[in-house]
Amino acid sequence: MQATQVGRGLDALFKPRSIAIFGASDDVTKIGGRPLQFLQKYGYAGGIYPINRKAGLVQSLQAYASLAELPEVPELAVIAVPPAGVLDAVQECARRGVKTAVILSAGFSEMGEEGSRLQARIGEVARASAMRIVGPNCLGAIGVPDKSIATFSVALESSFPAAGSVGIVSQSGNLGSFTLRLAGERGLGVSRMLTTGNECDVDIADAIASLAADPGTSVILCCMETCRDGAKLMQAMAMAREAGKPLVVLKVGVSEAGSAAAASHTGALAGSDAVFDAVLRQGGALRVPSIELLLEVGHALSVVGPARVPGGHRVAVLTASGGFGVLLADAASAQGLVLPKLAAQTQERILSAVPFAAPSNPVDMTAQVSSRPEVLARMLDAVARDDSCDALILQSANAFHVPRLRDVFLGALEQVRKDHPARLILLCARAPDDVRARLNAMGFPVVEGIDAACATVAALLRFGARNRAPAAPPAIDRAPLAAEAFATEASAKAVLAEAGLPVPREAIARSFDEALAAAREMGFPLVLKIVSPDIAHKTEVGGVFVGVRSEAQLREEYNKLLARVALKAPRARIAGVLVAQMVQGGVELILGSKKDPVFGPMVMVGLGGIFAEILKDVALQPAPVDEAQATAMLRSLKAFPLLDGARGRPKADVQAAAKAIAALSRFAVRHADSVSEIDINPLVVLDQGRGAHALDALLVSEEQAMKDKQ
Amino acid sequence: MQATQVGRGLDALFKPRSIAIFGASDDVTKIGGRPLQFLQKYGYAGGIYPINRKAGLVQSLQAYASLAELPEVPELAVIAVPPAGVLDAVQECARRGVKTAVILSAGFSEMGEEGSRLQARIGEVARASAMRIVGPNCLGAIGVPDKSIATFSVALESSFPAAGSVGIVSQSGNLGSFTLRLAGERGLGVSRMLTTGNECDVDIADAIASLAADPGTSVILCCMETCRDGAKLMQAMAMAREAGKPLVVLKVGVSEAGSAAAASHTGALAGSDAVFDAVLRQGGALRVPSIELLLEVGHALSVVGPARVPGGHRVAVLTASGGFGVLLADAASAQGLVLPKLAAQTQERILSAVPFAAPSNPVDMTAQVSSRPEVLARMLDAVARDDSCDALILQSANAFHVPRLRDVFLGALEQVRKDHPARLILLCARAPDDVRARLNAMGFPVVEGIDAACATVAALLRFGARNRAPAAPPAIDRAPLAAEAFATEASAKAVLAEAGLPVPREAIARSFDEALAAAREMGFPLVLKIVSPDIAHKTEVGGVFVGVRSEAQLREEYNKLLARVALKAPRARIAGVLVAQMVQGGVELILGSKKDPVFGPMVMVGLGGIFAEILKDVALQPAPVDEAQATAMLRSLKAFPLLDGARGRPKADVQAAAKAIAALSRFAVRHADSVSEIDINPLVVLDQGRGAHALDALLVSEEQAMKDKQ
Repeated sequence: MQATQVGRGLDALFKPRSIAIFGASDDVTKIGGRPLQFLQKYGYAGGIYPINRKAGLVQSLQAYASLAELPEVPELAVIAVPPAGVLDAVQECARRGVKTAVILSAGFSEMGEEGSRLQARIGEVARASAMRIVGPNCLGAIGVPDKSIATFSVALESSFPAAGSVGIVSQSGNLGSFTLRLAGERGLGVSRMLTTGNECDVDIADAIASLAADPGTSVILCCMETCRDGAKLMQAMAMAREAGKPLVVLKVGVSEAGSAAAASHTGALAGSDAVFDAVLRQGGALRVPSIELLLEVGHALSVVGPARVPGGHRVAVLTASGGFGVLLADAASAQGLVLPKLAAQTQERILSAVPFAAPSNPVDMTAQVSSRPEVLARMLDAVARDDSCDALILQSANAFHVPRLRDVFLGALEQVRKDHPARLILLCARAPDDVRARLNAMGFPVVEGIDAACATVAALLRFGARNRAPAAPPAIDRAPLAAEAFATEASAKAVLAEAGLPVPREAIARSFDEALAAAREMGFPLVLKIVSPDIAHKTEVGGVFVGVRSEAQLREEYNKLLARVALKAPRARIAGVLVAQMVQGGVELILGSKKDPVFGPMVMVGLGGIFAEILKDVALQPAPVDEAQATAMLRSLKAFPLLDGARGRPKADVQAAAKAIAALSRFAVRHADSVSEIDINPLVVLDQGRGAHALDALLVSEEQAMKDKQ
Repeated sequence: MQATQVGRGLDALFKPRSIAIFGASDDVTKIGGRPLQFLQKYGYAGGIYPINRKAGLVQSLQAYASLAELPEVPELAVIAVPPAGVLDAVQECARRGVKTAVILSAGFSEMGEEGSRLQARIGEVARASAMRIVGPNCLGAIGVPDKSIATFSVALESSFPAAGSVGIVSQSGNLGSFTLRLAGERGLGVSRMLTTGNECDVDIADAIASLAADPGTSVILCCMETCRDGAKLMQAMAMAREAGKPLVVLKVGVSEAGSAAAASHTGALAGSDAVFDAVLRQGGALRVPSIELLLEVGHALSVVGPARVPGGHRVAVLTASGGFGVLLADAASAQGLVLPKLAAQTQERILSAVPFAAPSNPVDMTAQVSSRPEVLARMLDAVARDDSCDALILQSANAFHVPRLRDVFLGALEQVRKDHPARLILLCARAPDDVRARLNAMGFPVVEGIDAACATVAALLRFGARNRAPAAPPAIDRAPLAAEAFATEASAKAVLAEAGLPVPREAIARSFDEALAAAREMGFPLVLKIVSPDIAHKTEVGGVFVGVRSEAQLREEYNKLLARVALKAPRARIAGVLVAQMVQGGVELILGSKKDPVFGPMVMVGLGGIFAEILKDVALQPAPVDEAQATAMLRSLKAFPLLDGARGRPKADVQAAAKAIAALSRFAVRHADSVSEIDINPLVVLDQGRGAHALDALLVSEEQAMKDKQ
């Protein structure tokens, strides 16, 4: 599939001129009965064609025995026949030019080998034709504006979703349906919903892309369990980003237990959560930890619009109670938000409205705001005027439920919206539905929970940062790597050095005289290492000597090293002895790249030894990364202070380390077809301005990695 | 105050025979008007005596100009007069034998110096009499069974709390009131509420104790901002524990920003969150991170009762959807719960009910449970029977809202309750209020959120663990420590060694001959250290030599060390040279104790160097701890694998380290009056069975700590 075709051909899914239903049934509890019922109940305006062996009337509509008998070729086919009949139906649809087919039927890859084979054949129909296929084993799709309904979701039993600009995509039908229902409960209007199920053709990336391209969608909510095509997902995320649309993602299967459950549920390997997290972050998706926050953040984004997304993480908090102020300060801190002191002038303004207020931040307006609610307008204005904050949270536990207070509050908010149109003001409040709707219409997101309110502000902030981040780096051309590069440490370092990775000066000596010549050129101290394609662990055969400080010692250690190796590894082919400048001092990093089966090369960095291995203190990102991203990776390490002059140490050359990470990451992408894994252990980072050196390097070829797996 | 008096004399607050209201007002928006209104509206049966300068009728009750004119001495006085009149009112109450006074008026310590002085004088009235005083600047108290109302909380405007067994205590009036309102919304019955405000006398510990002693309260919910008397709080927690009542605590002011806000709000230093956390944990309180979870956990505990608290962290999850199963598996993992594989027999039973179910764990009952809900009973029974799980979570997004499903579900749950009465079964479900109430009555907690459901199970588990934990260790008698102990490392180590802390063999040599004699007795290698009360940093004056390996070297280094010190610190008094066995290898811990101003000596342990200082990887607990607790502290370190044989290291002598921690903690308590701080850096822990050694020790006296503060 061409990369440019992600999400292609799905318009017919959401606004088809006509819909055929294979397996249409009179029984509205059946998956073939419900879509038909919904289409009629909610007034879909296009042609509806039930297909049913028995023909006659189905739910009082003329039914047809086969697709061939229809008066026109439907744009959309909903397939709800038993699994054995699905392939035939799909083939007929493709043959006759149906644009999209949705297979609601289950009984495919989730049921084992045989189901998987059948599903694969169905997928082939899509790849061999212009027709797209959604499912099987999915909950289908809804196009809200056109009332196109290709789903049996129980969420439609009570009512049709209110029209709006929030799109919902989900692999799990249940989670998608639940999200739809929650959206309805919160008064959040929906544009489209698409669940992808077993994904024989249309996958979650297509689903995201189709909403990114839809002018009626401004916010995309996504429930994701797995990803089968990393490049497609990255491209879909880029499309959302280019369209300026926030993509909020709930990734399920985070824990080991969850991943295992997801794998057994979707039949696809969910991939490591750390990799997913890095990919989503890099793609500019807003990851949220719960379905509740998926809704809160989505709702807030739809209410706020791009113009009011805050540019920084400084928040002012206004409450009518010290206790809530403390809770909000805690919750804000947990989200990385800061509460700066308000300007002196702001504090004066607050005190002039309520003399006993706590005017710093959080602002405690005190119970005065209940007895004299008119002071709220002055408070809001004072804080909204203050440039020391990027956003404002107004907390109210009860005011919007008290008629006397409600109207004054609404008035004050209307005024501040007029006077400060670009300010993000989020209400952490409980309010009746109608009041909340009014507040939303005025551009104020309303979040009930304290933690959720701060998490929502933080998510808006991340969305703003995504929009300001530079565009993706230029693509890197793929190139194969010569087989010789994989032979030894020396050959690996040679190609890495060429790619810009700093390695110590070194030379392979094939005789003592060559070693001596190299030593004279480099100067002492030196390190000697055996070079052999047959020796993976050099120290185990006595093949390393560190700290040669004179010519005499060089002669002695050169000979001793060869003798040790000859004794311990008599059959190893010896290519020579590596003579390398010895690097002293510095902090040891481990640096590497590994190809994720779904997302391609990932670059990883951590501090050497226990930090990476025991404390799991590593940073991970899809390759390539530029120097700034590499610096951010280093700074994200808990042990970063060790590079940054903690405990009286000298500062390390973080810039050199970042350059090395970036160079490694580009190398990993360029040679992704031949290189499976790269390990630099250690990369020694010297004091600021003195550089970094890859002291050891290992390249694992794709070929080798395949062999290791078998 | 005697320790046994925590919470004393508060019965009159919750079930007074009569109530007087100072500052009683006709205006029901005033704090002097509302209690009077509430008492009449909700039918308090005792005597109600408005006190008002103008006498006459107040809210149609006979008012009195002063306390003296009342027909009886009221047991409870509610004081709602301006701050300047409060002291007089309180004094009169005390003089006439009022049992408890609640000061609702504000304008005291929260308003600065003058207010603090006035408040202190009010507090003295309580200490000088038998009368207890709640407040000032508080929201007062409610005794639900007796309809005793000494509050102006707006939560009472709409309705009086339903009677139940959940007690609420809070320092913040607003948080207390909000908790009360949320309890009402969730159908949670309340026994008592008490907010303590500025705490001139009755504090949060008294409040907890009064509920621990109340037979009508079974669960205590607490919102805490600060603690002014650590010993009292610990005793109150012990009372709750002894009464078998869960104490659920929301501690606000967790972050730096939050602490700062709390300090400015309560006028008390909130203390470090790490210390609070350790104290609450040790006291067996169930700390929760949000007000929502305060309610969820409290509700669950009131529904479950002690008999169904799970004994282990193995959970079975039943869902009707794979996606929700994955979400629950993630959430369970995040809470430290595990999802074991169900027994083969259980899986067979599940599959015999629904052949296409995912029978492992999470169990995906599939949509079958909607089309054939009668299978639920068999599923529940199969899992409840399985001893591989300690608790069961049944998830349902919608079934309880669908009449057809609801009744079948309720029937199945009724049956499983009958067949497995002791099983904890928590419903992660949305349900209409009446259905939820029925489920609660059957002993099933109902939690809507997925994360909240798992957090609630984890909290129940912690409650169960508290009940099984051994009782508090026997008290340690206080004893002063001789001033000489603080003089030098050697003197500090001597007293610590006596207390059971392992130190290397060592001796102070006042001459070379003494050094030689000591060396001959101990054997080489040795360490030499200068001993001087005037030298704090021995290495800085060249006062340490490590690795003396022969008598000749001893002579040389002994003399050189003294010469270096004489040169660098010519005026220091030299007490001799410490000759100590040199300890080689091992892992370095830092171990210490520091007196918290509120909670007394805390014991702390971490790995040496960067772990404790940069990664903040330390464990903290109130002293004393026993060996088991000390072991748990070590195991809680992220770097614990370094002691436990990670990366091919030998296992360290964790038992010896735990013994050292326990010994240090007992020493810290015994000498808490004279010792402010103890630092052991390092405690070297050798390989398993080879012990641990405190290589250096520092004792800081109370006296010294005071000086340092000035």
